[in-house]
Amino acid sequence: MPKLWNDTIDAHKRNVRDSTLDATADLVTRKGLAAVTMSKIALETGIGRATLYKYFPDVEAMLLACHERQVHRHLESFKAIASGEGSPFPRLRNVLAAYAQMARDHEGGELAIALHRGGHMVHAREHLTAFLSSIITEAVAAGKIRADVPARELAVFCLSAVAGAADLRSKQAVERLVSVTLAALRPL
Amino acid sequence: MPKLWNDTIDAHKRNVRDSTLDATADLVTRKGLAAVTMSKIALETGIGRATLYKYFPDVEAMLLACHERQVHRHLESFKAIASGEGSPFPRLRNVLAAYAQMARDHEGGELAIALHRGGHMVHAREHLTAFLSSIITEAVAAGKIRADVPARELAVFCLSAVAGAADLRSKQAVERLVSVTLAALRPL
Repeated sequence: MPKLWNDTIDAHKRNVRDSTLDATADLVTRKGLAAVTMSKIALETGIGRATLYKYFPDVEAMLLACHERQVHRHLESFKAIASGEGSPFPRLRNVLAAYAQMARDHEGGELAIALHRGGHMVHAREHLTAFLSSIITEAVAAGKIRADVPARELAVFCLSAVAGAADLRSKQAVERLVSVTLAALRPL
Repeated sequence: MPKLWNDTIDAHKRNVRDSTLDATADLVTRKGLAAVTMSKIALETGIGRATLYKYFPDVEAMLLACHERQVHRHLESFKAIASGEGSPFPRLRNVLAAYAQMARDHEGGELAIALHRGGHMVHAREHLTAFLSSIITEAVAAGKIRADVPARELAVFCLSAVAGAADLRSKQAVERLVSVTLAALRPL
């Protein structure tokens, strides 16, 4: 088949997949995890059940793909913030604020709870730790962050600390959490 | 029945229950979660399967009771440390060090992962947050901890931050994590 034709098929497949995952995410949010069935997704998307099964062997695979996409999008947005302009410390603050916000918004999300220990989460967390470590290393070199603790350990500390946002209610409390976390990094 | 007789029966029931949970915990540690069956526990404890079913309706109930007991024991030990002699700040440090140690040792524990979102965990965490808040309040009054952030929020921060120990390998790294966490609490 000519390349153009293959491209069209690929684009079509991506569209079907994306619409399916959009419908899944939407259904989880509105009705909860237990409400997601192949039939309901077929109804929501207008895609036949038989076709859906060509993309996802079962509901679990669909939910996992949905969560993986969500985690991937978050990761991309954190990376965009991290690699922005400006000095490393404010960029670190912005990434932590975004991460804290996500932790707060998604706490109790059924999908997150059910799938949180998946391999993709471990991978995403390692990825995030690695690029936070590199911002921290920059900030240490600039004398803005303490140099007595390895950068990776400070990155682990930052991520764990701001994940506490899941237990906080107000936006102000989440902002204070980020400030308190950053206060620990001050050079001695 | 006379009270003494009831007491003897109660003590016996407690013993059966405790031995069962000991055997369960041991089996999970040695062979993993999937290896736990009623028959194996019966074999390990010498308690008949029929009797076991009078105590626990199924393996899941047994695993849950096992984890609840473990969480309860940890909580009691943290409370003992927290209510010890001495000024609040060193007591806070000791509780956080013990909590970090537990987080590091139990990371990847299958039982913990399977049951971590249970209601008893939420309850234990709230309990822990509450008594850390009260030590923090004491330390704030003594001028040892910053007064610009509510004590409960600082407690949430401390617990989340030191839970990062799960991602650390060495004992020294865990100690540094606790120190970094405490550094965030310094009065401004």
